[in-house]
Amino acid sequence: MRIAIDAMGGDRAPDKIIQGAVESLEFLQSDDEIIVVGPEDLLHEKLGSVLSTHSNIRIEPASQVIGMDESPVEAVRQKRNSSIVRMVKLAAAGGADAIISAGNTGALVAAGVLMLDALPGVERPGIAVPIPNGHSRVLLCDAGANVQPKPAHLHQYAILASVYSQTLYGVQSPRVGLLNIGTEDEKGTALIKETRLLLEKDSGLNFIGYVEGRDIFDDQCDVVITDGFTGNVVLKVIEGMGGSLLRTLKDQLAQLPAQTADELGPIIKKTFSLYDHEEYGGALLLGVSTLFLKVHGSAGKKAIRNAVHAAKQATRHNINARISAQLSERVA
Amino acid sequence: MRIAIDAMGGDRAPDKIIQGAVESLEFLQSDDEIIVVGPEDLLHEKLGSVLSTHSNIRIEPASQVIGMDESPVEAVRQKRNSSIVRMVKLAAAGGADAIISAGNTGALVAAGVLMLDALPGVERPGIAVPIPNGHSRVLLCDAGANVQPKPAHLHQYAILASVYSQTLYGVQSPRVGLLNIGTEDEKGTALIKETRLLLEKDSGLNFIGYVEGRDIFDDQCDVVITDGFTGNVVLKVIEGMGGSLLRTLKDQLAQLPAQTADELGPIIKKTFSLYDHEEYGGALLLGVSTLFLKVHGSAGKKAIRNAVHAAKQATRHNINARISAQLSERVA
Repeated sequence: MRIAIDAMGGDRAPDKIIQGAVESLEFLQSDDEIIVVGPEDLLHEKLGSVLSTHSNIRIEPASQVIGMDESPVEAVRQKRNSSIVRMVKLAAAGGADAIISAGNTGALVAAGVLMLDALPGVERPGIAVPIPNGHSRVLLCDAGANVQPKPAHLHQYAILASVYSQTLYGVQSPRVGLLNIGTEDEKGTALIKETRLLLEKDSGLNFIGYVEGRDIFDDQCDVVITDGFTGNVVLKVIEGMGGSLLRTLKDQLAQLPAQTADELGPIIKKTFSLYDHEEYGGALLLGVSTLFLKVHGSAGKKAIRNAVHAAKQATRHNINARISAQLSERVA
Repeated sequence: MRIAIDAMGGDRAPDKIIQGAVESLEFLQSDDEIIVVGPEDLLHEKLGSVLSTHSNIRIEPASQVIGMDESPVEAVRQKRNSSIVRMVKLAAAGGADAIISAGNTGALVAAGVLMLDALPGVERPGIAVPIPNGHSRVLLCDAGANVQPKPAHLHQYAILASVYSQTLYGVQSPRVGLLNIGTEDEKGTALIKETRLLLEKDSGLNFIGYVEGRDIFDDQCDVVITDGFTGNVVLKVIEGMGGSLLRTLKDQLAQLPAQTADELGPIIKKTFSLYDHEEYGGALLLGVSTLFLKVHGSAGKKAIRNAVHAAKQATRHNINARISAQLSERVA
């Protein structure tokens, strides 16, 4: 398989990203290929002799970089030669089977939604974000690709997210919840009620029924299905609340003796990192022909190696073929 | 004015609630009346001589109690003689100008939505929840009364919530944000875009434009307007995340020496209470003829006195007349 890696994305780019890419060669097979995307001269210099000693790593030139804080849609439109846009374009042209980046999540998703083909049978790609909840993680889908979905779209997301939960996280029979404002039958919008009927009828899903916002943190389910509007709001509320609580707690701790505060720093940092989805894994674009792995912004070489490994595993499990087969069997 | 108080609602009912009601008599005028709602015998015993020495406090009998954890809609349907249902019914019949309870929020709101008349000009009542964010509070409306609103409903909520923010929290010119998934013009659903046009045209509002989920915690605005589906999900995500983070942090702290953990307990408790909307204030039902104040579940006599004071203040500011005037001026 051919795995394109954005050398310029993330806080530790390019050095740690490139090191991760090179180390991945150790466990790849000779017919696998790593494609490192970024400024040609820089990558030549950083990769050095690796290019001559290994035939299965090459450079895809991209002269621009999209910063972590740039406005996503604008950046994608204007920086046509950025590593993100070049990487996604390469995949769109059939030149990569998987893409990996630690860069600007919004820009990656925007480029993916705009440029990549949908898998056969997929009506609309969806964004899935693994939300860490202290115990494990809940795959929230859709997190913003499709703000006014039809019930059939949400049904597809339930199937897609279940396959990803199995393949990437090893959850045997992912529990799927449909996000609603109560668990009683009469609760919710027409979209929710119609979607529930579709999910209930699909015996291939482990559908547990309606879940509420608080259940994301309750270990009630592995997959939470919602429209892209609600999903995106949920994601940003979680981000905002985590950041705000952490700041307030730090202010409070500043009143303690320095030694106590020092003792606590790591514990508090660790606790909050258990809830930081950006730290945990970023995002997946489900339903496109290319496996799309956004790794966390602070990814180093280990995270890149793990992502390459996950991409190989997903391919070994024929993730796209499984999705297509399940969609053609189970979707009207 | 006549203020009905649910003697049986909240963790510290009935004693602390009744004490708060009695203490409120000190600052009320002789033509104000406190109506304490609950089991007649019990209230007679608890109120004792107050009933004979004060002519402006009386009992409204209600033999049943709705527990804090009961399923709201079912409880309201079945317990027709509960203090919550009797209190709301009294208001619906014109027997109270304000109602105050520390009881089951869901049951209170369900009873209010079902039984109370809307103010003239109000198309659909909305639930507003003050969400504490570490700095101050954001009034989130609608939090679940109206899951598929029209743009005109959301415009009304912006007006209603602004008046409440001024009257109850003393915010002179409340900044109103419309919850969306980005701040660019093209973002969002048709509902959001149409609502934005209405809010922009209304020069009586201090409308700051689109806000995102994270801005609830950013001190960007005083009022956040959204549909009841999204608002309810947001509220429950905040609840779930706060609870889960607190549990995880406590687990982590258990590894510290007992003395350090003891030192920290109060700080952590205080920090999280700054984000607990249930602790902070509960909910308001906007747009109904009766002033509807849900106080926090752990309310004691001070919280009840404060709520009575707020009700008096709202009346002094003619909150309902202001709402009606603003609606008739500014809504098509």
